Amino acid sequence: MTINIALLGFGTVASGIPFLLKENGEKITAQAGTDIQIAKFLVRDDAEKQALLAQGHQYEFVTDITAILNDDTIDIVIELMGRIEPAKTFITQALQAKKHVVTANKDLLAVHGSDLLKVATDNGVVLYYEAAVTGGIPILRTLANSYTADKITKILGVVNGTSNFMMTKMVDEGWTYDEALAEASRLGYAESDPTNDVDGIDAAYKIVILSQFAFGMTIKFEDVRHEGIRNITPEDVKLAQKLGFVIKLVGEIVERPSGIYAEVVPTFLPKNHQLATVNGVMNAVFVESIGINEAMFYGPGAGQKPTATSVVADVIELAKGIDKGEVLPAFNTFTRETVYATKEDLVDKYYFAIETEDKAGQLLHLAELFHAENVSFEQVFQENIGDDRASIAIISHKMDLNQFDSLVEKISNLEGFTLRNTIKVI
Amino acid sequence: MTINIALLGFGTVASGIPFLLKENGEKITAQAGTDIQIAKFLVRDDAEKQALLAQGHQYEFVTDITAILNDDTIDIVIELMGRIEPAKTFITQALQAKKHVVTANKDLLAVHGSDLLKVATDNGVVLYYEAAVTGGIPILRTLANSYTADKITKILGVVNGTSNFMMTKMVDEGWTYDEALAEASRLGYAESDPTNDVDGIDAAYKIVILSQFAFGMTIKFEDVRHEGIRNITPEDVKLAQKLGFVIKLVGEIVERPSGIYAEVVPTFLPKNHQLATVNGVMNAVFVESIGINEAMFYGPGAGQKPTATSVVADVIELAKGIDKGEVLPAFNTFTRETVYATKEDLVDKYYFAIETEDKAGQLLHLAELFHAENVSFEQVFQENIGDDRASIAIISHKMDLNQFDSLVEKISNLEGFTLRNTIKVI
Repeated sequence: MTINIALLGFGTVASGIPFLLKENGEKITAQAGTDIQIAKFLVRDDAEKQALLAQGHQYEFVTDITAILNDDTIDIVIELMGRIEPAKTFITQALQAKKHVVTANKDLLAVHGSDLLKVATDNGVVLYYEAAVTGGIPILRTLANSYTADKITKILGVVNGTSNFMMTKMVDEGWTYDEALAEASRLGYAESDPTNDVDGIDAAYKIVILSQFAFGMTIKFEDVRHEGIRNITPEDVKLAQKLGFVIKLVGEIVERPSGIYAEVVPTFLPKNHQLATVNGVMNAVFVESIGINEAMFYGPGAGQKPTATSVVADVIELAKGIDKGEVLPAFNTFTRETVYATKEDLVDKYYFAIETEDKAGQLLHLAELFHAENVSFEQVFQENIGDDRASIAIISHKMDLNQFDSLVEKISNLEGFTLRNTIKVI
Repeated sequence: MTINIALLGFGTVASGIPFLLKENGEKITAQAGTDIQIAKFLVRDDAEKQALLAQGHQYEFVTDITAILNDDTIDIVIELMGRIEPAKTFITQALQAKKHVVTANKDLLAVHGSDLLKVATDNGVVLYYEAAVTGGIPILRTLANSYTADKITKILGVVNGTSNFMMTKMVDEGWTYDEALAEASRLGYAESDPTNDVDGIDAAYKIVILSQFAFGMTIKFEDVRHEGIRNITPEDVKLAQKLGFVIKLVGEIVERPSGIYAEVVPTFLPKNHQLATVNGVMNAVFVESIGINEAMFYGPGAGQKPTATSVVADVIELAKGIDKGEVLPAFNTFTRETVYATKEDLVDKYYFAIETEDKAGQLLHLAELFHAENVSFEQVFQENIGDDRASIAIISHKMDLNQFDSLVEKISNLEGFTLRNTIKVI
């Protein structure tokens, strides 16, 4: 038997797939129990087709999706075009044509995943997407297959390589945000418009998908609070170090008694936290649960070969089942009603960076404010920063979101005090 | 439908299973597609049975394995007795009675795994054992299901919690081996005879099993060179730190052009290596491959709930298939002929700890020896240690095992020089 696949798009990741099928062909065939063969490649237009043929690529390139949809020999369609359209339409049409689909398209899955999964179910086929979250880390299949007996209580993820590269430079080298962005651009890690990476949007997409696998709940993308790394200053980084922390952009999903909550925000991580050593463009997902307790899954978040490896692993899973004539299981079978946590139930420590006149009694004013909110200090660091000004950094004990909002308002309104930044502390 | 399971043994891990089935019952039933129920518990004798009943446990305790073997309502047998016998006999009998078996017994699997797997195949049932390697880290299923498209070139594992706890104390606190062992014993991490943990035997068992999943080859236990942590001195730890490393007991499996090689040895890890921050009783498996490149899987290596979680995840996988009437796939389907690497193909850096008289020309003697073997220095650190004696620590560049053996012999025979220790450097 041979399983025929069609690829949509001939970009970086897509061109890694023929590499793997050739380089690891023997193992892949043995694992799948069948040959896997690329039947067709969908490219943009005739110009791209001619260019690829001229480069010596010997695939059947087509420019019209119907050539794939109507080809009954094709079992699996792999979408690697990215963005929303035409990927969404093509995936929908492929599912309707009873073809299984593999994709790495996190933007699409985070926003339209539920709709696409319904189309798949209605047509008796499945949609797999291991590569959509942290490209090379096999986290989704692990959550789906190895956490079946466990109850996850918290996910912490460093899931955006570009921003993590920048934060690593800001922490290790003391660079400013702008210096780190310039280097990320120079190295090709940051796009010309870096918004999705530096503002936490890309990470929030991944958090939506992780919430489905880890908690069985579908948090809407617009319900994931996201705040990027633009406002992190070298002062924050330095103060973090003095207080025993490193700053990273962390996506967090937590289940509390009242429900679930997710956000992507700059976060103080204790230096000895396993996530604190995840540096450069590497990604990691830290999982807290009642059974396994603490585990971390670390690896490349992107890149041609890591992403292609995850895509082909999905294809092999599908091929195994097709070969045996089995009904293929959905990629994720864990679903519960989505219930959001209340603000009272969201309890964290925070870092407050405050500037004020360097004179007696200033810290007392702050202590009174915190005391009135029933929140105590865990660490305080004060220093003179010149011009008779003092910098006061506070690591608080735990407070709920209402207390936090109230404290932020009160400090902001305190005459002679500037609240320069607040950052969540793990 | 209800899947009935029988448990052999009522130790720490076994008693974690009823906890999970109760605490996560709803999720487990949903994931398995069926109820999972404990039908019988095998205990040692009537005294243990009476004691457990007196404690209020309301299971059907049996003292004779035939009560389980002859019970046609039992689909899955879970062996959690440990050691070789009677576990080996009971597992064999259960497989012959056409019952699927789940076990966490690494000693047994490392030595008799191939035989047991053959019995399973011959009887049309399967043997699953996720919990046998690094209890709470779902590494075996990940290697089996997510590395299907990849080719693994190296595995590095910190896979023994007791010795890692001790090495962490020796590195972070400067403790001696004996001090660390005393604390590990006090905390219940080390058994009264700590041989298996501190001499790398337990880790070697796990390395055998990992070699099967990662490389498709079965390295014999006696072919895994193992050397423990007894000979690591505070001087070695201090020198490692000066040279930019931490020492850990690391299991390594590497595939070279000529074949495969595995060993468990104390290892210098660069401070920024992801494994270097795996501390205390925690475990991690670092995987290098041509597709994903570098990934690490971190978590608890033992413990009641982590291990029970992995066991129940295996049970759920089995229950899913039984419920659907499918032929269950073997736990690991990746097999190749086992070929061992040649000594010439095993190339590593090494740390040499040497003591000699503190006088002119001593380093020159060593430099000449290394030069004669065509091996160069990467780092050298020399200091006077009193009594006109000098300590010389050398980190070499890469050499093969023949060069290493030759250098060790030559330095040992060099008059006036003592070769205090050699340690592999990653």
